[in-house]
Amino acid sequence: MKRVELIAVDGVPEVQPGDDLGEMIGSRAILQAGDVVVVAQKVVSKAEGRIVDLDTITVTARAVDIAARLIARPDPRMVQVALNESVRVLRSERVLITETRHGFVCANSGVDHSNVGGRNALTLLPLDPDASASRLRDRLREVTGVEVGVIVSDTFGRPWRLGIVNVALGVAGLPALVDLRGSLDDDGKPLHATVLAVADDAAAAAGIVMGKTGRSPAVIVRGAQLAGGGTGRELIRAPEEDLFR
Amino acid sequence: MKRVELIAVDGVPEVQPGDDLGEMIGSRAILQAGDVVVVAQKVVSKAEGRIVDLDTITVTARAVDIAARLIARPDPRMVQVALNESVRVLRSERVLITETRHGFVCANSGVDHSNVGGRNALTLLPLDPDASASRLRDRLREVTGVEVGVIVSDTFGRPWRLGIVNVALGVAGLPALVDLRGSLDDDGKPLHATVLAVADDAAAAAGIVMGKTGRSPAVIVRGAQLAGGGTGRELIRAPEEDLFR
Repeated sequence: MKRVELIAVDGVPEVQPGDDLGEMIGSRAILQAGDVVVVAQKVVSKAEGRIVDLDTITVTARAVDIAARLIARPDPRMVQVALNESVRVLRSERVLITETRHGFVCANSGVDHSNVGGRNALTLLPLDPDASASRLRDRLREVTGVEVGVIVSDTFGRPWRLGIVNVALGVAGLPALVDLRGSLDDDGKPLHATVLAVADDAAAAAGIVMGKTGRSPAVIVRGAQLAGGGTGRELIRAPEEDLFR
Repeated sequence: MKRVELIAVDGVPEVQPGDDLGEMIGSRAILQAGDVVVVAQKVVSKAEGRIVDLDTITVTARAVDIAARLIARPDPRMVQVALNESVRVLRSERVLITETRHGFVCANSGVDHSNVGGRNALTLLPLDPDASASRLRDRLREVTGVEVGVIVSDTFGRPWRLGIVNVALGVAGLPALVDLRGSLDDDGKPLHATVLAVADDAAAAAGIVMGKTGRSPAVIVRGAQLAGGGTGRELIRAPEEDLFR
Protein backbone atom coordinates (compact mmCIF):
# COMPACT_ATOMS: atom_id res chain seq x y z
CA MET A 1 0.00 0.00 0.00
CA LYS A 2 1.62 3.21 -1.16
CA ARG A 3 1.57 5.92 1.48
CA VAL A 4 2.57 9.58 1.32
CA GLU A 5 2.77 11.88 4.32
CA LEU A 6 2.30 15.66 4.38
CA ILE A 7 3.92 17.15 7.47
CA ALA A 8 3.73 20.81 8.43
CA VAL A 9 6.94 22.44 9.63
CA ASP A 10 5.72 24.37 12.64
CA GLY A 11 7.21 27.14 14.67
CA VAL A 12 8.94 29.06 11.90
CA PRO A 13 9.01 32.67 13.16
CA GLU A 14 8.06 35.66 11.03
CA VAL A 15 10.57 35.91 8.21
CA GLN A 16 12.53 39.13 7.70
CA PRO A 17 14.67 40.24 4.75
CA GLY A 18 18.08 38.61 4.92
CA ASP A 19 16.92 35.75 7.14
CA ASP A 20 18.50 32.34 6.60
CA LEU A 21 15.28 30.59 5.59
CA GLY A 22 16.98 27.25 4.92
CA GLU A 23 18.31 27.22 8.47
CA MET A 24 14.97 28.34 9.90
CA ILE A 25 13.19 25.43 8.19
CA GLY A 26 15.97 22.84 8.45
CA SER A 27 16.42 23.33 12.19
CA ARG A 28 12.72 22.67 12.79
CA ALA A 29 12.26 19.65 10.53
CA ILE A 30 13.53 16.09 10.79
CA LEU A 31 14.12 15.44 7.12
CA GLN A 32 14.63 12.14 5.36
CA ALA A 33 16.35 11.50 2.04
CA GLY A 34 13.81 11.78 -0.76
CA ASP A 35 11.57 14.23 1.09
CA VAL A 36 10.21 17.16 -0.89
CA VAL A 37 10.00 20.40 1.07
CA VAL A 38 7.35 22.77 -0.24
CA VAL A 39 8.01 26.36 0.83
CA ALA A 40 5.50 29.18 0.45
CA GLN A 41 6.60 31.89 -1.97
CA LYS A 42 5.74 34.59 0.53
CA VAL A 43 8.44 33.63 3.04
CA VAL A 44 10.96 33.06 0.23
CA SER A 45 10.24 36.54 -1.12
CA LYS A 46 10.52 38.07 2.34
CA ALA A 47 13.85 36.34 3.06
CA GLU A 48 15.15 37.47 -0.34
CA GLY A 49 14.05 41.04 0.26
CA ARG A 50 11.60 41.00 -2.66
CA ILE A 51 9.56 43.69 -0.92
CA VAL A 52 8.43 47.10 -2.08
CA ASP A 53 7.35 49.84 0.28
CA LEU A 54 4.05 51.25 -0.98
CA ASP A 55 5.16 54.79 -0.17
CA THR A 56 7.96 54.60 -2.72
CA ILE A 57 5.64 53.92 -5.67
CA THR A 58 4.68 56.58 -8.21
CA VAL A 59 1.54 55.62 -10.09
CA THR A 60 0.85 56.15 -13.77
CA ALA A 61 -2.54 57.11 -15.20
CA ARG A 62 -2.82 53.56 -16.55
CA ALA A 63 -2.55 52.04 -13.09
CA VAL A 64 -5.19 54.43 -11.75
CA ASP A 65 -7.46 53.59 -14.67
CA ILE A 66 -7.05 49.81 -14.21
CA ALA A 67 -7.47 50.00 -10.42
CA ALA A 68 -10.87 51.65 -10.87
CA ARG A 69 -12.06 48.78 -13.08
CA LEU A 70 -11.12 45.97 -10.68
CA ILE A 71 -13.64 44.42 -8.32
CA ALA A 72 -11.28 44.54 -5.35
CA ARG A 73 -10.71 48.28 -5.88
CA PRO A 74 -7.02 47.90 -5.03
CA ASP A 75 -4.61 50.66 -4.14
CA PRO A 76 -3.44 51.98 -7.56
CA ARG A 77 0.12 51.67 -6.29
CA MET A 78 -0.40 47.93 -5.99
CA VAL A 79 -1.62 47.84 -9.60
CA GLN A 80 1.43 49.84 -10.63
CA VAL A 81 3.76 47.34 -9.01
CA ALA A 82 1.90 44.45 -10.67
CA LEU A 83 2.31 46.21 -14.04
CA ASN A 84 6.01 46.77 -13.35
CA GLU A 85 6.43 43.04 -12.71
CA SER A 86 4.63 42.05 -15.91
CA VAL A 87 5.53 41.71 -19.58
CA ARG A 88 1.90 41.53 -20.72
CA VAL A 89 -1.61 42.24 -19.47
CA LEU A 90 -4.09 39.51 -20.39
CA ARG A 91 -7.17 40.94 -18.65
CA SER A 92 -7.77 44.12 -16.73
CA GLU A 93 -11.52 44.09 -16.27
CA ARG A 94 -12.72 42.97 -12.83
CA VAL A 95 -9.43 41.20 -12.16
CA LEU A 96 -5.90 41.93 -13.32
CA ILE A 97 -4.35 38.90 -15.02
CA THR A 98 -0.80 39.37 -16.24
CA GLU A 99 2.09 37.42 -17.63
CA THR A 100 5.06 37.96 -15.35
CA ARG A 101 8.67 38.33 -16.42
CA HIS A 102 9.10 34.64 -15.62
CA GLY A 103 6.18 33.68 -17.88
CA PHE A 104 3.68 32.85 -15.13
CA VAL A 105 0.11 33.87 -15.89
CA CYS A 106 -1.55 34.89 -12.64
CA ALA A 107 -3.48 37.61 -10.83
CA ASN A 108 -1.62 40.84 -10.06
CA SER A 109 1.75 39.39 -11.20
CA GLY A 110 1.80 37.49 -7.91
CA VAL A 111 2.19 40.76 -5.98
CA ASP A 112 0.72 40.50 -2.52
CA HIS A 113 0.06 42.76 0.44
CA SER A 114 2.30 42.11 3.36
CA ASN A 115 3.06 43.53 6.73
CA VAL A 116 6.83 43.51 6.90
CA GLY A 117 8.19 44.97 10.10
CA GLY A 118 5.14 47.20 10.50
CA ARG A 119 5.55 48.75 7.05
CA ASN A 120 2.75 48.84 4.51
CA ALA A 121 4.49 46.82 1.85
CA LEU A 122 4.07 44.46 -1.08
CA THR A 123 5.86 41.18 -1.69
CA LEU A 124 6.98 40.38 -5.23
CA LEU A 125 7.58 36.90 -6.62
CA PRO A 126 11.21 35.75 -6.37
CA LEU A 127 13.30 36.95 -9.32
CA ASP A 128 14.12 33.35 -10.23
CA PRO A 129 12.05 30.80 -8.29
CA ASP A 130 14.10 27.88 -9.61
CA ALA A 131 17.26 29.51 -8.27
CA SER A 132 15.47 30.15 -4.96
CA ALA A 133 14.48 26.47 -4.76
CA SER A 134 18.01 25.41 -5.63
CA ARG A 135 19.58 27.65 -2.97
CA LEU A 136 17.12 26.41 -0.34
CA ARG A 137 17.93 22.84 -1.31
CA ASP A 138 21.66 23.50 -0.92
CA ARG A 139 21.16 25.19 2.44
CA LEU A 140 18.90 22.38 3.72
CA ARG A 141 21.63 19.90 2.77
CA GLU A 142 24.19 21.95 4.70
CA VAL A 143 21.97 22.33 7.76
CA THR A 144 20.52 18.81 7.94
CA GLY A 145 22.91 16.68 5.92
CA VAL A 146 19.94 15.34 3.99
CA GLU A 147 19.32 15.50 0.24
CA VAL A 148 15.76 16.70 -0.41
CA GLY A 149 13.77 18.20 -3.22
CA VAL A 150 12.41 21.74 -2.88
CA ILE A 151 9.36 23.42 -4.37
CA VAL A 152 8.68 27.15 -4.02
CA SER A 153 4.89 27.36 -4.23
CA ASP A 154 2.20 29.99 -4.57
CA THR A 155 -1.58 29.94 -4.81
CA PHE A 156 -2.92 30.73 -8.28
CA GLY A 157 -6.44 31.06 -9.62
CA ARG A 158 -7.52 29.19 -12.74
CA PRO A 159 -9.79 29.99 -15.66
CA TRP A 160 -12.87 27.77 -15.84
CA ARG A 161 -12.59 26.70 -12.20
CA LEU A 162 -13.19 28.67 -9.01
CA GLY A 163 -10.88 28.95 -6.05
CA ILE A 164 -7.13 29.05 -5.80
CA VAL A 165 -4.78 26.08 -5.69
CA ASN A 166 -1.15 25.81 -4.76
CA VAL A 167 1.23 25.43 -7.73
CA ALA A 168 4.98 25.03 -8.14
CA LEU A 169 6.86 28.18 -9.20
CA GLY A 170 10.36 26.94 -8.49
CA VAL A 171 11.59 23.36 -8.41
CA ALA A 172 14.92 21.76 -7.47
CA GLY A 173 15.85 18.14 -6.89
CA LEU A 174 12.66 16.55 -8.21
CA PRO A 175 10.97 16.30 -11.60
CA ALA A 176 8.39 18.94 -12.48
CA LEU A 177 6.76 16.81 -15.15
CA VAL A 178 6.67 13.04 -15.54
CA ASP A 179 6.14 11.97 -19.12
CA LEU A 180 4.23 8.71 -19.31
CA ARG A 181 3.85 8.78 -23.08
CA GLY A 182 5.05 5.47 -24.38
CA SER A 183 4.13 3.73 -21.11
CA LEU A 184 1.24 1.34 -21.00
CA ASP A 185 -1.91 1.79 -18.95
CA ASP A 186 -3.47 -0.91 -16.77
CA ASP A 187 -5.06 -2.41 -19.86
CA GLY A 188 -1.72 -2.64 -21.64
CA LYS A 189 -2.61 0.16 -24.08
CA PRO A 190 -0.22 3.06 -24.76
CA LEU A 191 -0.95 6.20 -22.77
CA HIS A 192 -1.38 9.26 -24.97
CA ALA A 193 -0.93 12.88 -23.93
CA THR A 194 -0.20 11.87 -20.41
CA VAL A 195 2.38 14.16 -18.92
CA LEU A 196 1.79 14.47 -15.19
CA ALA A 197 2.56 17.82 -13.55
CA VAL A 198 3.86 16.07 -10.44
CA ALA A 199 5.41 19.19 -8.90
CA ASP A 200 2.03 20.94 -9.13
CA ASP A 201 0.33 17.91 -7.56
CA ALA A 202 2.88 18.00 -4.74
CA ALA A 203 2.44 21.75 -4.26
CA ALA A 204 -1.34 21.33 -4.13
CA ALA A 205 -0.96 18.51 -1.62
CA ALA A 206 1.13 20.77 0.59
CA GLY A 207 -1.58 23.38 0.19
CA ILE A 208 -3.95 21.20 2.23
CA VAL A 209 -1.60 21.48 5.20
CA MET A 210 -0.36 25.00 4.59
CA GLY A 211 -3.80 26.51 4.57
CA LYS A 212 -3.65 30.24 4.27
CA THR A 213 -4.00 31.48 7.80
CA GLY A 214 -2.09 28.75 9.61
CA ARG A 215 1.54 29.62 10.07
CA SER A 216 3.00 26.66 8.21
CA PRO A 217 5.19 28.21 5.53
CA ALA A 218 6.82 24.85 4.81
CA VAL A 219 5.42 21.35 4.38
CA ILE A 220 7.31 18.10 3.96
CA VAL A 221 5.99 15.67 1.32
CA ARG A 222 7.35 12.26 2.31
CA GLY A 223 7.16 9.03 0.34
CA ALA A 224 6.18 10.47 -3.02
CA GLN A 225 9.16 8.80 -4.73
CA LEU A 226 9.81 11.75 -7.01
CA ALA A 227 13.36 11.01 -8.09
CA GLY A 228 15.07 13.09 -10.74
CA GLY A 229 15.55 16.71 -11.56
CA GLY A 230 13.38 19.41 -13.05
CA THR A 231 12.55 23.10 -12.98
CA GLY A 232 9.49 25.21 -12.44
CA ARG A 233 10.22 26.82 -15.79
CA GLU A 234 9.31 23.53 -17.50
CA LEU A 235 5.77 23.87 -16.16
CA ILE A 236 5.18 27.08 -18.10
CA ARG A 237 3.38 26.56 -21.39
CA ALA A 238 5.15 28.47 -24.16
CA PRO A 239 3.01 31.45 -25.26
CA GLU A 240 3.13 30.33 -28.90
CA GLU A 241 1.70 26.92 -27.91
CA ASP A 242 -0.90 28.37 -25.59
CA LEU A 243 -4.42 28.48 -26.98
CA PHE A 244 -5.78 30.68 -24.21
CA ARG A 245 -3.40 33.60 -23.92
CA MET B 1 2.54 19.49 13.81
CA LYS B 2 -0.27 19.02 11.34
CA ARG B 3 0.01 15.79 9.41
CA VAL B 4 -2.01 14.43 6.50
CA GLU B 5 -1.68 10.95 5.07
CA LEU B 6 -2.37 9.79 1.52
CA ILE B 7 -3.00 6.05 1.42
CA ALA B 8 -3.55 4.05 -1.76
CA VAL B 9 -6.35 1.50 -1.72
CA ASP B 10 -4.70 -1.48 -3.36
CA GLY B 11 -6.02 -4.65 -4.85
CA VAL B 12 -9.18 -3.28 -6.45
CA PRO B 13 -9.81 -5.60 -9.42
CA GLU B 14 -10.71 -4.38 -12.90
CA VAL B 15 -14.09 -2.67 -12.69
CA GLN B 16 -16.96 -3.83 -14.91
CA PRO B 17 -20.30 -2.19 -15.64
CA GLY B 18 -22.72 -2.81 -12.79
CA ASP B 19 -19.98 -3.51 -10.25
CA ASP B 20 -20.56 -2.41 -6.66
CA LEU B 21 -17.63 0.02 -6.55
CA GLY B 22 -18.39 1.22 -3.01
CA GLU B 23 -18.14 -2.36 -1.77
CA MET B 24 -15.00 -3.01 -3.82
CA ILE B 25 -13.26 -0.03 -2.22
CA GLY B 26 -14.81 -0.23 1.24
CA SER B 27 -13.89 -3.89 1.71
CA ARG B 28 -10.23 -3.12 0.95
CA ALA B 29 -9.80 0.02 3.05
CA ILE B 30 -9.76 0.57 6.80
CA LEU B 31 -11.52 3.90 6.90
CA GLN B 32 -11.68 6.42 9.72
CA ALA B 33 -14.30 9.10 10.33
CA GLY B 34 -13.27 12.27 8.53
CA ASP B 35 -11.31 10.48 5.81
CA VAL B 36 -11.78 11.70 2.27
CA VAL B 37 -11.78 8.94 -0.35
CA VAL B 38 -10.69 10.13 -3.79
CA VAL B 39 -11.91 7.82 -6.54
CA ALA B 40 -10.72 7.98 -10.14
CA GLN B 41 -13.44 8.95 -12.61
CA LYS B 42 -12.51 6.08 -14.89
CA VAL B 43 -13.58 3.35 -12.48
CA VAL B 44 -16.71 5.31 -11.52
CA SER B 45 -17.64 5.60 -15.19
CA LYS B 46 -16.98 1.92 -15.78
CA ALA B 47 -19.08 0.85 -12.81
CA GLU B 48 -21.89 3.15 -13.95
CA GLY B 49 -21.75 1.78 -17.48
CA ARG B 50 -20.75 5.12 -18.98
CA ILE B 51 -19.09 3.30 -21.84
CA VAL B 52 -19.59 3.57 -25.57
CA ASP B 53 -18.53 0.89 -27.99
CA LEU B 54 -16.57 2.54 -30.81
CA ASP B 55 -18.26 0.33 -33.41
CA THR B 56 -21.66 1.86 -32.62
CA ILE B 57 -20.60 5.43 -33.50
CA THR B 58 -21.53 7.14 -36.76
CA VAL B 59 -19.26 10.06 -37.51
CA THR B 60 -20.27 13.40 -38.97
CA ALA B 61 -18.18 15.38 -41.44
CA ARG B 62 -17.42 17.82 -38.65
CA ALA B 63 -15.84 15.13 -36.48
CA VAL B 64 -13.71 13.93 -39.42
CA ASP B 65 -12.64 17.50 -40.11
CA ILE B 66 -11.70 18.19 -36.49
CA ALA B 67 -9.90 14.85 -36.07
CA ALA B 68 -7.61 15.74 -38.98
CA ARG B 69 -6.61 19.01 -37.31
CA LEU B 70 -5.64 17.49 -33.96
CA ILE B 71 -2.04 16.61 -33.10
CA ALA B 72 -2.96 13.21 -31.71
CA ARG B 73 -4.80 12.29 -34.96
CA PRO B 74 -7.52 10.56 -32.99
CA ASP B 75 -10.10 8.17 -34.34
CA PRO B 76 -12.87 10.45 -35.72
CA ARG B 77 -15.37 8.36 -33.79
CA MET B 78 -13.68 9.45 -30.58
CA VAL B 79 -14.03 13.08 -31.68
CA GLN B 80 -17.68 12.43 -32.48
CA VAL B 81 -18.33 11.11 -28.98
CA ALA B 82 -16.49 14.10 -27.45
CA LEU B 83 -18.70 16.43 -29.51
CA ASN B 84 -21.82 14.53 -28.42
CA GLU B 85 -20.82 15.04 -24.78
CA SER B 86 -20.23 18.78 -25.22
CA VAL B 87 -22.35 21.89 -25.28
CA ARG B 88 -19.59 24.06 -26.76
CA VAL B 89 -16.26 23.74 -28.54
CA LEU B 90 -13.67 26.19 -27.25
CA ARG B 91 -10.71 25.09 -29.40
CA SER B 92 -10.39 22.50 -32.15
CA GLU B 93 -6.94 23.23 -33.49
CA ARG B 94 -4.19 20.86 -32.31
CA VAL B 95 -6.27 19.84 -29.28
CA LEU B 96 -10.02 19.60 -28.76
CA ILE B 97 -11.13 21.64 -25.77
CA THR B 98 -14.83 21.55 -25.02
CA GLU B 99 -17.32 22.57 -22.41
CA THR B 100 -19.18 19.47 -21.26
CA ARG B 101 -22.84 19.24 -20.39
CA HIS B 102 -21.80 19.58 -16.74
CA GLY B 103 -19.87 22.79 -17.48
CA PHE B 104 -16.37 21.32 -17.19
CA VAL B 105 -13.87 22.74 -19.65
CA CYS B 106 -11.43 19.99 -20.60
CA ALA B 107 -9.86 18.03 -23.43
CA ASN B 108 -12.13 15.75 -25.47
CA SER B 109 -15.07 16.24 -23.07
CA GLY B 110 -13.26 13.89 -20.69
CA VAL B 111 -13.82 11.00 -23.08
CA ASP B 112 -11.08 8.39 -22.77
CA HIS B 113 -10.02 5.19 -24.48
CA SER B 114 -10.62 2.13 -22.45
CA ASN B 115 -10.39 -1.58 -22.77
CA VAL B 116 -13.59 -2.85 -21.23
CA GLY B 117 -13.89 -6.58 -21.38
CA GLY B 118 -11.78 -6.76 -24.52
CA ARG B 119 -13.98 -4.30 -26.40
CA ASN B 120 -12.56 -1.22 -28.10
CA ALA B 121 -14.53 1.31 -26.11
CA LEU B 122 -14.61 4.84 -24.74
CA THR B 123 -15.44 5.91 -21.21
CA LEU B 124 -17.57 9.03 -20.74
CA LEU B 125 -17.61 11.22 -17.64
CA PRO B 126 -20.33 10.29 -15.13
CA LEU B 127 -23.67 11.94 -15.96
CA ASP B 128 -23.68 13.68 -12.56
CA PRO B 129 -20.34 13.36 -10.73
CA ASP B 130 -21.79 14.89 -7.54
CA ALA B 131 -24.48 12.24 -7.49
CA SER B 132 -21.83 9.59 -8.13
CA ALA B 133 -19.80 10.87 -5.17
CA SER B 134 -22.88 10.97 -2.99
CA ARG B 135 -23.87 7.39 -3.88
CA LEU B 136 -20.34 6.15 -3.22
CA ARG B 137 -20.36 7.94 0.13
CA ASP B 138 -23.65 6.28 1.08
CA ARG B 139 -22.39 2.88 0.01
CA LEU B 140 -19.09 3.29 1.89
CA ARG B 141 -21.09 4.15 5.01
CA GLU B 142 -23.18 0.99 4.56
CA VAL B 143 -20.17 -1.22 3.94
CA THR B 144 -17.78 0.19 6.57
CA GLY B 145 -20.03 1.98 9.04
CA VAL B 146 -17.80 5.03 8.68
CA GLU B 147 -18.77 8.53 7.57
CA VAL B 148 -16.29 9.77 4.97
CA GLY B 149 -16.11 12.40 2.27
CA VAL B 150 -15.83 11.34 -1.37
CA ILE B 151 -14.27 13.04 -4.38
CA VAL B 152 -14.64 11.72 -7.93
CA SER B 153 -11.50 12.96 -9.66
CA ASP B 154 -10.06 13.20 -13.14
CA THR B 155 -6.86 14.56 -14.63
CA PHE B 156 -7.29 17.81 -16.55
CA GLY B 157 -4.85 19.95 -18.48
CA ARG B 158 -4.60 23.67 -17.85
CA PRO B 159 -4.02 26.71 -20.04
CA TRP B 160 -0.76 28.51 -19.27
CA ARG B 161 0.76 25.51 -17.51
CA LEU B 162 1.96 22.18 -18.90
CA GLY B 163 1.04 18.75 -17.67
CA ILE B 164 -2.16 17.38 -16.23
CA VAL B 165 -3.27 17.56 -12.61
CA ASN B 166 -5.98 15.71 -10.75
CA VAL B 167 -9.11 17.80 -10.05
CA ALA B 168 -12.43 17.19 -8.29
CA LEU B 169 -15.40 16.56 -10.59
CA GLY B 170 -17.81 15.31 -7.95
CA VAL B 171 -17.80 16.03 -4.23
CA ALA B 172 -19.84 14.71 -1.30
CA GLY B 173 -19.34 15.11 2.43
CA LEU B 174 -16.60 17.74 2.36
CA PRO B 175 -16.39 21.36 1.24
CA ALA B 176 -15.29 22.05 -2.33
CA LEU B 177 -14.29 25.64 -1.56
CA VAL B 178 -13.24 27.23 1.71
CA ASP B 179 -13.87 30.95 1.78
CA LEU B 180 -11.32 32.73 3.94
CA ARG B 181 -12.50 36.22 3.00
CA GLY B 182 -13.06 38.12 6.17
CA SER B 183 -10.48 36.00 8.00
CA LEU B 184 -7.21 37.54 9.07
CA ASP B 185 -3.81 36.47 7.84
CA ASP B 186 -0.79 35.86 10.07
CA ASP B 187 -0.17 39.60 10.21
CA GLY B 188 -3.73 40.30 11.37
CA LYS B 189 -4.72 41.82 8.02
CA PRO B 190 -7.92 40.80 6.20
CA LEU B 191 -7.43 38.21 3.46
CA HIS B 192 -8.81 39.32 0.11
CA ALA B 193 -9.84 37.09 -2.76
CA THR B 194 -8.84 34.00 -0.86
CA VAL B 195 -11.17 31.16 -1.63
CA LEU B 196 -9.29 27.91 -1.44
CA ALA B 197 -10.31 25.11 -3.81
CA VAL B 198 -9.68 22.49 -1.13
CA ALA B 199 -11.35 19.65 -3.02
CA ASP B 200 -9.03 20.27 -5.97
CA ASP B 201 -6.02 20.36 -3.63
CA ALA B 202 -7.17 17.03 -2.13
CA ALA B 203 -7.71 15.52 -5.58
CA ALA B 204 -4.24 16.66 -6.68
CA ALA B 205 -2.74 15.21 -3.51
CA ALA B 206 -4.37 11.87 -4.28
CA GLY B 207 -2.94 12.19 -7.78
CA ILE B 208 0.57 11.77 -6.36
CA VAL B 209 -0.39 8.33 -5.11
CA MET B 210 -2.76 7.35 -7.90
CA GLY B 211 -0.23 7.94 -10.61
CA LYS B 212 -1.56 6.95 -13.97
CA THR B 213 -0.28 3.48 -14.55
CA GLY B 214 -0.41 2.15 -10.99
CA ARG B 215 -3.66 0.41 -10.26
CA SER B 216 -4.76 2.58 -7.35
CA PRO B 217 -8.18 3.83 -8.39
CA ALA B 218 -8.87 5.09 -4.88
CA VAL B 219 -6.78 7.02 -2.37
CA ILE B 220 -7.62 7.90 1.22
CA VAL B 221 -6.78 11.45 2.36
CA ARG B 222 -6.56 11.25 6.15
CA GLY B 223 -6.23 14.13 8.60
CA ALA B 224 -7.13 16.98 6.26
CA GLN B 225 -9.89 18.19 8.60
CA LEU B 226 -12.24 19.06 5.77
CA ALA B 227 -15.54 19.22 7.61
CA GLY B 228 -18.68 20.43 5.92
CA GLY B 229 -20.50 19.87 2.68
CA GLY B 230 -20.00 20.95 -0.89
CA THR B 231 -20.33 19.94 -4.50
CA GLY B 232 -18.08 19.67 -7.51
CA ARG B 233 -20.51 21.94 -9.32
CA GLU B 234 -19.42 24.81 -7.05
CA LEU B 235 -15.92 24.54 -8.51
CA ILE B 236 -17.13 25.43 -11.99
CA ARG B 237 -16.71 29.08 -12.87
CA ALA B 238 -19.90 30.42 -14.43
CA PRO B 239 -19.36 31.10 -18.15
CA GLU B 240 -20.56 34.70 -17.77
CA GLU B 241 -17.92 35.31 -15.08
CA ASP B 242 -15.18 33.53 -16.98
CA LEU B 243 -12.69 35.78 -18.74
CA PHE B 244 -11.06 33.00 -20.73
CA ARG B 245 -13.89 31.09 -22.36
